[in-house]
Amino acid sequence: MASLSGRSDAETDLNASAKRLHNRLATVIDALAPAISDVFARIARSSADQVGVTRDAYGARETAAGDILIEFARRQELKAGYDRVGNLNVTPSMRSEDASKILIGSHLDSVPRGGNYDGLAGVVAGIAVLSAMQQASISLKAALRVLGFRGEESPWFGTAYLGSKLFLGLLTQPDIETLRRFDTGNTLAEHMRALGLDLSAVGKGPLRSLDGVKAYLELHIEQGPLLESIGRPVGLATAIRGNIRYPFAKCFGRYAHSAAVPRHLRADALMATAKLVAFADDCWRASIDAGNDDLVFTCGIFHTDASEHAMTKIPGEVTFSLNIGATTDEVMDQMHRSIMARAEDLTREHHVKFDFGPRVGTGAVSLNKELLQIIEDAGNEVGIPPYLLPTVGHDAAMFARNGIPSSVILVRNTNSSHNPDEYMEMEDFISALKVLGSAVLKLC
Amino acid sequence: MASLSGRSDAETDLNASAKRLHNRLATVIDALAPAISDVFARIARSSADQVGVTRDAYGARETAAGDILIEFARRQELKAGYDRVGNLNVTPSMRSEDASKILIGSHLDSVPRGGNYDGLAGVVAGIAVLSAMQQASISLKAALRVLGFRGEESPWFGTAYLGSKLFLGLLTQPDIETLRRFDTGNTLAEHMRALGLDLSAVGKGPLRSLDGVKAYLELHIEQGPLLESIGRPVGLATAIRGNIRYPFAKCFGRYAHSAAVPRHLRADALMATAKLVAFADDCWRASIDAGNDDLVFTCGIFHTDASEHAMTKIPGEVTFSLNIGATTDEVMDQMHRSIMARAEDLTREHHVKFDFGPRVGTGAVSLNKELLQIIEDAGNEVGIPPYLLPTVGHDAAMFARNGIPSSVILVRNTNSSHNPDEYMEMEDFISALKVLGSAVLKLC
Repeated sequence: MASLSGRSDAETDLNASAKRLHNRLATVIDALAPAISDVFARIARSSADQVGVTRDAYGARETAAGDILIEFARRQELKAGYDRVGNLNVTPSMRSEDASKILIGSHLDSVPRGGNYDGLAGVVAGIAVLSAMQQASISLKAALRVLGFRGEESPWFGTAYLGSKLFLGLLTQPDIETLRRFDTGNTLAEHMRALGLDLSAVGKGPLRSLDGVKAYLELHIEQGPLLESIGRPVGLATAIRGNIRYPFAKCFGRYAHSAAVPRHLRADALMATAKLVAFADDCWRASIDAGNDDLVFTCGIFHTDASEHAMTKIPGEVTFSLNIGATTDEVMDQMHRSIMARAEDLTREHHVKFDFGPRVGTGAVSLNKELLQIIEDAGNEVGIPPYLLPTVGHDAAMFARNGIPSSVILVRNTNSSHNPDEYMEMEDFISALKVLGSAVLKLC
Repeated sequence: MASLSGRSDAETDLNASAKRLHNRLATVIDALAPAISDVFARIARSSADQVGVTRDAYGARETAAGDILIEFARRQELKAGYDRVGNLNVTPSMRSEDASKILIGSHLDSVPRGGNYDGLAGVVAGIAVLSAMQQASISLKAALRVLGFRGEESPWFGTAYLGSKLFLGLLTQPDIETLRRFDTGNTLAEHMRALGLDLSAVGKGPLRSLDGVKAYLELHIEQGPLLESIGRPVGLATAIRGNIRYPFAKCFGRYAHSAAVPRHLRADALMATAKLVAFADDCWRASIDAGNDDLVFTCGIFHTDASEHAMTKIPGEVTFSLNIGATTDEVMDQMHRSIMARAEDLTREHHVKFDFGPRVGTGAVSLNKELLQIIEDAGNEVGIPPYLLPTVGHDAAMFARNGIPSSVILVRNTNSSHNPDEYMEMEDFISALKVLGSAVLKLC
């Protein structure tokens, strides 16, 4: 508010005109709130699962969300439809002649039984900004395109960013014939064919020319509760955390009677694995105590074998996952080395064998500093200074890695993401929308 | 062998006659080996599950085992059948007039997918000793009765020793109407009625008078690998470990995005629980390092919620079991207090809530010293000195707790018990049978 309320006669006409433009856009955005609430609610109903929402990647509920957004965009007098690889595309009704392009995007799918805003918020935001620009009759010096990607979440095909990878030309025909969805057992190609898509575009470079793309902007609900904890509605990502992941790790010991086997004769798979993850958490805590808040570590899956375990048996097998994240590869590698060394020690101490299975993950991604500055300035101008923080994997990572200046605007989330209790205040979303809109104005 | 080979002329005629008796019994026992192997094999086939054997308490496979044993006992010209509460009873064909009684027993049921010898070995042993006595025309000064109890294993009804408790009159009508089998959901009373049993005997004191019962003897496969690890075929229990158990403990945290939530804002149910069980193991190790080998600790069940967990989610819920064992209640209580105190600390550190659910278990049981000495002497006399060690819960605990001198003879087990790989050499079983037979001779 400071810059808006603190006007002086010394300000240039240009600045005054720009501010009028920002204000006009903000007013139109405010007026869009009821329509935005309605489209979120409609999609929540179409995606409702037993607990939370499920929009399965390259599946029926993801498409249902896309269909509702197409209807919404068309009602806002925008052009909307799916491209050849199934991503949602929304553009202004009048085509800009300018060669410089700005992309605004996020994803349509959700994790199983997740929240309604993860991904969807960014697509709705893109459509809302386009609509607001059009309603405010703001003529832009750049072509705008909103993209709603399919298949961003990794639980479906075991790997993330499928829609943005297809858009950027990063998947081959063999890739889509190999990737299989865990629940259906069908390949990505089979899922795409079932959606009526023409797979001939796959493996032939970017779907659209990336020449002249000035920026990829993504609004996303914060996956963590950091903004909530510090009382700030809008964040801006400084970097995207990479990860080193073991989705299907196992520890093998030997089943035996719980009360009769002395400790030195046990091969307790549970105890070795419990100590391994506890050790990882201790490493993390030590890193925080040393002043480094870059690292994250999670063991999300951990179970003894339900067909054999019992209160009275020493567990002979444990299945678990490991998930290391950081904004630099060095920090991830160091954590990974520490965990592997500890596993060696535990193998000896508990007479077990670890089989970590396939290692997957992505490198850390730094984000464009110049673009970050422009968005931070835009936020300050509309009185919503964004809080700077690292974020997690988003489609933006794919664009940044392919040389396109990218940025992620984060919206406060009461109960963090990837769970049914995820919650976003509409007021916060509108605030973030104003930052996004102003940033687009500045970029044009 | 020392006492047998070291004969001297100074030995009394009585000793020489006793030794001849012991030798005669041993010879008959050796000759029984093929028939014993056959009955074990027949029951293993009738109890075969996908992995290992399953004899469900008060169910069809437990009864099938009992039926095969009745046939086996009758072929050995013994009297055999089920009593009013469903336990197998085998007695010599000629009823002894002596009022002093010796009971030999163990159980018919198994844990789900366990080994064939756990429980069954003791019932077969009792029948074999009776048969050998009868074949060797040894007239005894005591009434012998072999008991094959149902429902000793706790996984079925959540509590152990059901058959011996019914024999001893320790269960009431409300008890059997309340206890439910986990898999069928039916009460113990319903299971007993389905077996055609007359429940009017329940809750009216011991099924048979316990006056004049001189000893309860149980042969049991060692549940641990201690005898195997020290190269001894036969053990003798010094005490029965009690336990403090939490079969259905839970830890509640909050599901959240794995990479986006800083450590201080997490409520990680997995990490808190992993640290709790790792702490318990550290306590155990410290106790061993301090020279105490009394304690045992096992976490047999530990799992995140399969319907909600994911590699990319901080776990919001963990289900687990705790199982503390020791031969003295003081040691168990101390361990229990340490674990509960640590849980308090972890509740604060990880912002979780533990709900341990119902606490179950049994007190530690010391065994009759005089009877132990008699069996140790019997073993020494037949050249098989038993190794003294604490053991785990057996039906013998129920008899000892009810004032009947009780003892447990243990047989070496290659892969420990409560698992499909449990393994006993027939030679070791025959050795233990000789110790048991000689002990019975000494007691008469």
